[in-house]
Amino acid sequence: MGSSMETELKEIFNELNSLQNSLPDPSHQSQIHQLQCRIERLSNLAKSGGMHRSKVKDMSAEVVDSNPYSRLMALQRMGIVQNYERIRQFSIAIVGIGGVGSVAAEMLTRCGIGRLLLYDYDKVELANMNRLFFRPEQVGMTKTEAAVETLSDINPDVVFESYTLNITTVQGFETFMSSLKNKSFGPHKEGSGVDLVLSCVDNYEARMVVNQACNELNQTWMESGVSENAVSGHIQLLVPGETACFACAPPLVVASGVDERTLKREGVCAASLPTTMGVVAGLLVQNALKYLLKFGQVTPYLGYNALKDYFPTMEMKPNPQCSNSACLERQKEYILVKPARDAAARAKMEAEAQSATECPIHADNEWNISVVDDSEVAGPDVRSSGILPDGLMHELPSADGFSNLPVSGDGSNPLDDLDELRKQLEALNADKS
Amino acid sequence: MGSSMETELKEIFNELNSLQNSLPDPSHQSQIHQLQCRIERLSNLAKSGGMHRSKVKDMSAEVVDSNPYSRLMALQRMGIVQNYERIRQFSIAIVGIGGVGSVAAEMLTRCGIGRLLLYDYDKVELANMNRLFFRPEQVGMTKTEAAVETLSDINPDVVFESYTLNITTVQGFETFMSSLKNKSFGPHKEGSGVDLVLSCVDNYEARMVVNQACNELNQTWMESGVSENAVSGHIQLLVPGETACFACAPPLVVASGVDERTLKREGVCAASLPTTMGVVAGLLVQNALKYLLKFGQVTPYLGYNALKDYFPTMEMKPNPQCSNSACLERQKEYILVKPARDAAARAKMEAEAQSATECPIHADNEWNISVVDDSEVAGPDVRSSGILPDGLMHELPSADGFSNLPVSGDGSNPLDDLDELRKQLEALNADKS
Repeated sequence: MGSSMETELKEIFNELNSLQNSLPDPSHQSQIHQLQCRIERLSNLAKSGGMHRSKVKDMSAEVVDSNPYSRLMALQRMGIVQNYERIRQFSIAIVGIGGVGSVAAEMLTRCGIGRLLLYDYDKVELANMNRLFFRPEQVGMTKTEAAVETLSDINPDVVFESYTLNITTVQGFETFMSSLKNKSFGPHKEGSGVDLVLSCVDNYEARMVVNQACNELNQTWMESGVSENAVSGHIQLLVPGETACFACAPPLVVASGVDERTLKREGVCAASLPTTMGVVAGLLVQNALKYLLKFGQVTPYLGYNALKDYFPTMEMKPNPQCSNSACLERQKEYILVKPARDAAARAKMEAEAQSATECPIHADNEWNISVVDDSEVAGPDVRSSGILPDGLMHELPSADGFSNLPVSGDGSNPLDDLDELRKQLEALNADKS
Repeated sequence: MGSSMETELKEIFNELNSLQNSLPDPSHQSQIHQLQCRIERLSNLAKSGGMHRSKVKDMSAEVVDSNPYSRLMALQRMGIVQNYERIRQFSIAIVGIGGVGSVAAEMLTRCGIGRLLLYDYDKVELANMNRLFFRPEQVGMTKTEAAVETLSDINPDVVFESYTLNITTVQGFETFMSSLKNKSFGPHKEGSGVDLVLSCVDNYEARMVVNQACNELNQTWMESGVSENAVSGHIQLLVPGETACFACAPPLVVASGVDERTLKREGVCAASLPTTMGVVAGLLVQNALKYLLKFGQVTPYLGYNALKDYFPTMEMKPNPQCSNSACLERQKEYILVKPARDAAARAKMEAEAQSATECPIHADNEWNISVVDDSEVAGPDVRSSGILPDGLMHELPSADGFSNLPVSGDGSNPLDDLDELRKQLEALNADKS
C-alpha cells in the first residue's frame, strides 16, 4: 500500500502547486500551501508504514543485521544442512490456507523457498482470528489474496502463485492438476512441476481429492490435521505406491467424512487453538525441510496429543486391495523398483557407517541425557519379539539406536492390518484443520 | 495507520470544498473537483488497509463469522476447558520478544489473554526475518514497540504493557521486579501481579536474572530455549521450592554462558529456523494454557529434537545445596506445606477416580491406536525396576496408563543427581532463543 499511496500523494502535491501558481488571491495561495503541508505529512505517514525489503540475488552467510538469510545459511556452518541455498529451486503446493496452511506458508516464505502455490476458496473472517497469520484488516479478502499480500511483503524473493478455487469441483480439480504439472519454474525437474504437496485442508473430501491428484501424478505429499476438540493433531508422509495412500482402507469408512460446513450448518463449530495449529504447522514444515534439504529423518506419521505432550509415531504400508486404482498402479511400479532401491539404500548406509567409524559426525550428545541401552528398550529386537503390535515403534529409542529403526521403504514392520488402517482412517476422518 | 490517515484525508477533502466555493473560475473549480476525487480514492485505499476490529465486551460462543472467540469458546462445549473466559483475568509476562517470545505473545493475544507484559531491549533487524512475527517494514523499531503495534491490531481486548529495557542491568532489574509486583490489573490476586512468567531469552545471564526474580517473588515460570544449531529446543516448568530452579547446579558451570552478542562479536551467528521456534512457542503456550485454564497435564520438562521428532520428558527436584538463597528459602517453605498438598491431591484423585467409574469422561480412544499393556513397557514398575535412570520416564506409556506417571509435586522419581543436573544445565547453557 505504501508506495502507491506515496505516488498518489506526490501527484496531488504537484497539482496543488500548479493550482497555486494560477491563483491570484494570496489568501487562496496560503490555503493551498496549508493543504500541501498536510499532504506532505500524510506522505511521511504512508512512507513509514510501507518500507519493503528489496530482493536478494544470492543467499549470503554474512553475519550482518541486514542479511535476512544469515541465520539460515548458518545451518551449513553448524553442519546441519549441506547446501541450504538449494531451497530456492524447490516448489511447494499448499492446499488449504487455514490455521495450519497459512502458518506453513509463512514458515516456508521466511525460509526462502523458491516457489509457493497456494490453494483456497474461502474468505478471511473474524472467526479465524484465534489462529495465527491473518489480521482483522484482511477480513473479507480471499485467504489466497490476503496470504500473498502478507507473504510477498515478508519475502519478495519467493515466487507466489495463488489459486482461489475449490479443488473438489470438476473445474477446480482440473486447474489444480494442471498447476501441479506446470514445469515452467524448473523445466529440468523430474516428475511433476512441484517438489512436495502439503495438504492443510479441514475435511475428508478435500483430502481424498489431494490423494487422487498425488496418486495420479506419482507425487509425494504430506497430510496434516487437527482434531475438532483442538487438542490433538498429526502429520503424515505419503509416497504413492510406497506408503498407504489416503484411500488405503475398507470402503465402509469412506462415507463418514464430516466437514466444517456441515458442522456450521448444524449451528456448532469445531474448537481450534493457535498453539496446536502452530505446533502442527511447525512439525509439518520441519519435515518438509528435512525431506527437501536431506537432513535428519522424515517421520512417516507423527501425532501430537496436546493434553499429555505425547507424540506417537507409526508407519503404514499400502493396501493391496485399495479402492483407488491409481494407488494400485503406483504399488505395482514400486514393487518393480524396490529391490534396486533397497540395495542402493543398504550400500549408502554401509558407506555412511564406514565413514562414521572414521570420523563421527554427531560425537556429542546434544541432549546430555543418557537414556537406556538399545537392547533393553525400543530396539528392533523388542519390536520383532512381539511386545509392540506390528507397525508401532517405541517413542523413546536411545538416541544412537534411532538410526536402526525401520524407515519408510524397508518394509520390515509395516502396519498392514486392515483393521488398524480402518481405525487410523477413522481418526484422520475426525480431523480437520 | 488507517484511521488517522482517513481523518486527515477527510479534512483535506473538506478544505478543498471550502476553497472551491470561494473560487470564481470554473476551470479552477474543476481542478479542485479532480483533486477531491483523488483524495476519495486515497481514502478508500487507506480504509481497506486499516480496518480494525472493535473491542468485545464478553466472550461469546455464538457461531457467526464475525465472532473472534467462537472457536475458543467451543473448547467448553467440547469438554476440554471448563471456563474459557477466565483467560481474561490472567496476566502473563514474556521476557524476550525474539523468535520464541514474539510467537508466544501472538498466540496468547489471539487466545484473548487478559494482560501481556513484554520485555526486550533489542531492535527489529532484517536478520530476524527468518523467524515468524516481525515484518520487514518494522526494521529499526524496538521489538516491544513493533510487537505492541501488531498485537493490539490483532486483538484490542488485550491489555499490553511494554518494557524496553535490559533486565540484566541494575535499573532494568528494578523495573522488571516492580512491574511483576504491580497488582493494579487484578487487585485481589494472591502472590505477585502476574500469573505466569515466560522466559524466551537467548542467553544464560538473562535466564539467571529471571530465575532470581521468580525465586524472590515465589513466582511460577516457564523457561524455553532453542539450540544454536536450530534443530532442538525445550520448555520447562519452574515452581520455586518445588522443582529445580535454574541455579540448582554446581557453580562451576555458571560462568560458561555464551550469549548471542559474544557470538556476533566473533563474526559468527547461531542458526535459527521458524519451524523449531514455532514448535517451541506452541508447546510453551500450550502448557501455559493448560496451567492457567486447568486442563490436560502440564509437562515439567519437554524437549524437542527436530532431526528425529523425538520429545524427551523428565523432572528435576530442587538442589538442597543450591547457590541461590531465595531458592533455599522457597525449598524450606515447600517442605512445610507439602504434606497438606499431597493429602489434598490424593483426595482429589480419589474423588476423580470415583466419578470416572460412574461416568467415564474419555471413553473413546482419541488416537484409535492400541499400544501395549502397562505392565510390559513404560509403567512405573519398569522405572522403579531400574531400567531407566532416575527421573527419566518413557515417552510412550499407554494412553490410559499415563495418569499413573509421577506428576510435578509427588516427588517419586525426581532427577536429583547433581551430575545429571550439571549436564542438564550445560544443555540449557547451549540454548538460545
